Amino acid sequence: MAHNVLINGEWIPSTGTSTFQAVNPATKQPIDGDYPVSPWSEVDAALEATAEASRQMRGWSGERFAAFLERYADRIEARTDELVDMANQETALPAAGRLKGVELPRTTNQLRQAATAAREGSWATATIDTAAGIRSMFGPIGPVAVFGPNNFPFAFNGISGGDFAAAVAAGNPVIAKGHSSHPGTTRLFAEEARLAAQETEMPSGFVQLVYRTNHDDGAKLVGDPRLGATGYTGARGAGLFLKEAADRGGNPIYLELSSINPVFILPGAIAEKGDELAAGFTASCLMGTGQFCTNPGIVAVVAGEQTEAFIASVASGFSEAPVGTFLSEGVGKHFAAGLAALQKAGATLVTGGRPGGGSGYSHQNTLLRVGGSTFLADPEGLQAEAFGNSSLFVVAENAAQLTAIAESLEGNLTGCIYSCSQGSDDELYDSLAPALRTKVGRLLNDKMPTGVAVSAAMNHGGPFPATGHPTFTAVGMPTSIHRFAMLQSYDNIRPHRLPALLQDKNPNSGCWRSIDGQWTTGNVSK
Amino acid sequence: MAHNVLINGEWIPSTGTSTFQAVNPATKQPIDGDYPVSPWSEVDAALEATAEASRQMRGWSGERFAAFLERYADRIEARTDELVDMANQETALPAAGRLKGVELPRTTNQLRQAATAAREGSWATATIDTAAGIRSMFGPIGPVAVFGPNNFPFAFNGISGGDFAAAVAAGNPVIAKGHSSHPGTTRLFAEEARLAAQETEMPSGFVQLVYRTNHDDGAKLVGDPRLGATGYTGARGAGLFLKEAADRGGNPIYLELSSINPVFILPGAIAEKGDELAAGFTASCLMGTGQFCTNPGIVAVVAGEQTEAFIASVASGFSEAPVGTFLSEGVGKHFAAGLAALQKAGATLVTGGRPGGGSGYSHQNTLLRVGGSTFLADPEGLQAEAFGNSSLFVVAENAAQLTAIAESLEGNLTGCIYSCSQGSDDELYDSLAPALRTKVGRLLNDKMPTGVAVSAAMNHGGPFPATGHPTFTAVGMPTSIHRFAMLQSYDNIRPHRLPALLQDKNPNSGCWRSIDGQWTTGNVSK
Repeated sequence: MAHNVLINGEWIPSTGTSTFQAVNPATKQPIDGDYPVSPWSEVDAALEATAEASRQMRGWSGERFAAFLERYADRIEARTDELVDMANQETALPAAGRLKGVELPRTTNQLRQAATAAREGSWATATIDTAAGIRSMFGPIGPVAVFGPNNFPFAFNGISGGDFAAAVAAGNPVIAKGHSSHPGTTRLFAEEARLAAQETEMPSGFVQLVYRTNHDDGAKLVGDPRLGATGYTGARGAGLFLKEAADRGGNPIYLELSSINPVFILPGAIAEKGDELAAGFTASCLMGTGQFCTNPGIVAVVAGEQTEAFIASVASGFSEAPVGTFLSEGVGKHFAAGLAALQKAGATLVTGGRPGGGSGYSHQNTLLRVGGSTFLADPEGLQAEAFGNSSLFVVAENAAQLTAIAESLEGNLTGCIYSCSQGSDDELYDSLAPALRTKVGRLLNDKMPTGVAVSAAMNHGGPFPATGHPTFTAVGMPTSIHRFAMLQSYDNIRPHRLPALLQDKNPNSGCWRSIDGQWTTGNVSK
Repeated sequence: MAHNVLINGEWIPSTGTSTFQAVNPATKQPIDGDYPVSPWSEVDAALEATAEASRQMRGWSGERFAAFLERYADRIEARTDELVDMANQETALPAAGRLKGVELPRTTNQLRQAATAAREGSWATATIDTAAGIRSMFGPIGPVAVFGPNNFPFAFNGISGGDFAAAVAAGNPVIAKGHSSHPGTTRLFAEEARLAAQETEMPSGFVQLVYRTNHDDGAKLVGDPRLGATGYTGARGAGLFLKEAADRGGNPIYLELSSINPVFILPGAIAEKGDELAAGFTASCLMGTGQFCTNPGIVAVVAGEQTEAFIASVASGFSEAPVGTFLSEGVGKHFAAGLAALQKAGATLVTGGRPGGGSGYSHQNTLLRVGGSTFLADPEGLQAEAFGNSSLFVVAENAAQLTAIAESLEGNLTGCIYSCSQGSDDELYDSLAPALRTKVGRLLNDKMPTGVAVSAAMNHGGPFPATGHPTFTAVGMPTSIHRFAMLQSYDNIRPHRLPALLQDKNPNSGCWRSIDGQWTTGNVSK
């Protein structure tokens, strides 16, 4: 008997005819429990229920959503050990250091930051033009579908992660599509989400879950007129398939796809602290077995003796570091295919390159290299993502070629530049940085990209194909909430009919509003 | 010899093999002057030049763009009489009252508001998180293509209108695609834009113009990787064709498509001031021969004796009002087809309905009606837009049906509700307004939708298919600028390398920035 799906507030048996199991990637053994592939009729029922929930919640204050988010965060914490154990089995991510120590607190922190934002209301950017008699704010966009990725079973899970938190903070119900590699973890979250929703008197269709659908039903879901928007984090192929369907239906879809996160290490920086940088780069690149969206997949350097020593130092770090376990068999297969594609495009092996070396699904820590001119002859082929514990050194023939490499890059989430602290790289920086700036959502100096702070100034986004829209971020409160909001203007509306956030008296002392061009937490003064 | 196109700073002969002429819609006579249909090679050359302009302008301050916008506004004013005369010939819009009196001042006002916004920098929403060491702001998205509509030859012209002003204010170069019904007007603007760009030392590819392309080349343009984004205002069919190509290329496209702008007039309002409302509605509906994006195409009322008197009063207003001239033969044909489609779907004629009645291309002021149940049986067919001087009364059988009608609407730019000032409609309002709110970008009370103030609180946007993305507005400074901006985060960037707007010291005394969650025009205090 397969596990139930969560539709319209109830756990009900799926009518689907096929099922799947999770696999422990460290042992390659299936984990007990069958999960259903939902047929369209179940997705359709979820859409009906989510549309009804959306209707019921019209005009609700942020406080209602904040109450749910906080209750849910509390419930997650109360079930920490079970969640950590399940996710550890399903993903092989380290239980103590990663799942319990970092990712679970990040998840509840995101939910609570979303609650604070929903309660305060500043995110809605209430704008009041007293002379014209027009007021505007962001309101809910309508039901949101969230497709979570494989690599953050807590913090980006479709039913507990950043997209979920942002969609709810904007006042929307959510249909979560679990990731097939950790259905048990997703189920535990959904159980707590349902109970938290009941305890805070949310509509029955407020939070729903299907574990898997076929591709066509996924496409129908994201393009359905009952849906407001979609958040998707994952592989590029599946993401672009969903984007086409969402675009055709006129529904916004926010994608976080592959990104190779180029790191430029300028000659002066290598001369100044090559060993320190080699160690830092190795740690960033191999963290989580390289399965981070911001994992540095390309390192651009300028040819020279010190650079060769630097590459050798990274190579020795790679070969000495323990080999981690992939999240699934599929990650391993894609990784091997990615490495093969890069080599076919002209990259050569520096170290690693063979399957195995760790527990379960694994592949040696792998370093590749390619000359700058070869890279520039086929930038597309040499930017293929090998999601995992590898990186590609691009060795420019001279400093000027670095800027040409930056100009040839696709859109990325991040781009880093390391330069000498004494100014010897400054001229090169000034030519390189403006080119790199246009290609990445977040530009860094002297810092690896793998940490993604939950900050209002964070941009976890970037130009296509890193994401589907370069104006939005997937991480950061309150900014990430805007993805799931529509702009609502009120023209000549009788004062008592305005939403509380647009009335003359500011309902929340902490809420920032723009009144006649001035940001203030005060009231409209007459 | 056809007119030249403006590519990379020069007026050059087109290599296109076909041409077209403008037609005076009031006389149905062609206007002297051939305009080219540009082949792909010209569009490609424009893309190369715009990409190079974009590179040259990296890091430029808002002041540079403000200087251009202001110089351009001055130049437009200096050529007012010629512009008004040309546009009057090409569109038949009244020279004094409309073009010179309203639309030209609106156009220069928009350009100057964009200049103010670019100079001040508040639009960029600089966000500083001192604890995390991360700072972000909006920067230019890259070259923008602007497709202007037929109905505002000045204020929405591809090379002088709202999208142009917003794209430039964000720091982008523009490729304008003129509307085929007023190429001469567009040419005069482009001449002034080019000179203003030269005088303010902008790159040669900063402002470019092609008059027309075939559909496939238009699609290639909006999907090209050298482009950052597109603004399109016009018919739904062409817009959705471009949207598909832009979406496939991963380029944001902002569409302002058809909208029927429903007006709900509640029973108490009719009882209270039916005659006044009939006059106001008639004026709004026939203004500009109904060729406004916010023209009220549907009026929903509740069946009853007073309603019949109200309909009769509007009908008599429609039949007594002078019949205007359409912008083109094509508008007339589409209008007739739209009226036929509505009648086929079940609407019946109240007044008008026949071609002619005015100078040149024209059609009688036309009023249709349909019962609420008939409307609800085919809401899609009865929401077809008849762009022009007509409207459709939807007569609900009872008050509750009004809310069902609102729920059945497609996305629209605006929705209005008129209600009794004494409270007799309040219960009905409370059930209707939340439903209508989710369907429209701008909700109005006791006011017709045809005026679109250039206000920070304006939303000239709305859910699909009124636009392509409900989070953005096409009118209003500084909000409309965000469409043409990408989010750029700076993580651990050395202070002197930060853009001026993100440095500790605020470079512009009027620039609002969010520092550690507080909006301020001050500096970062350490």
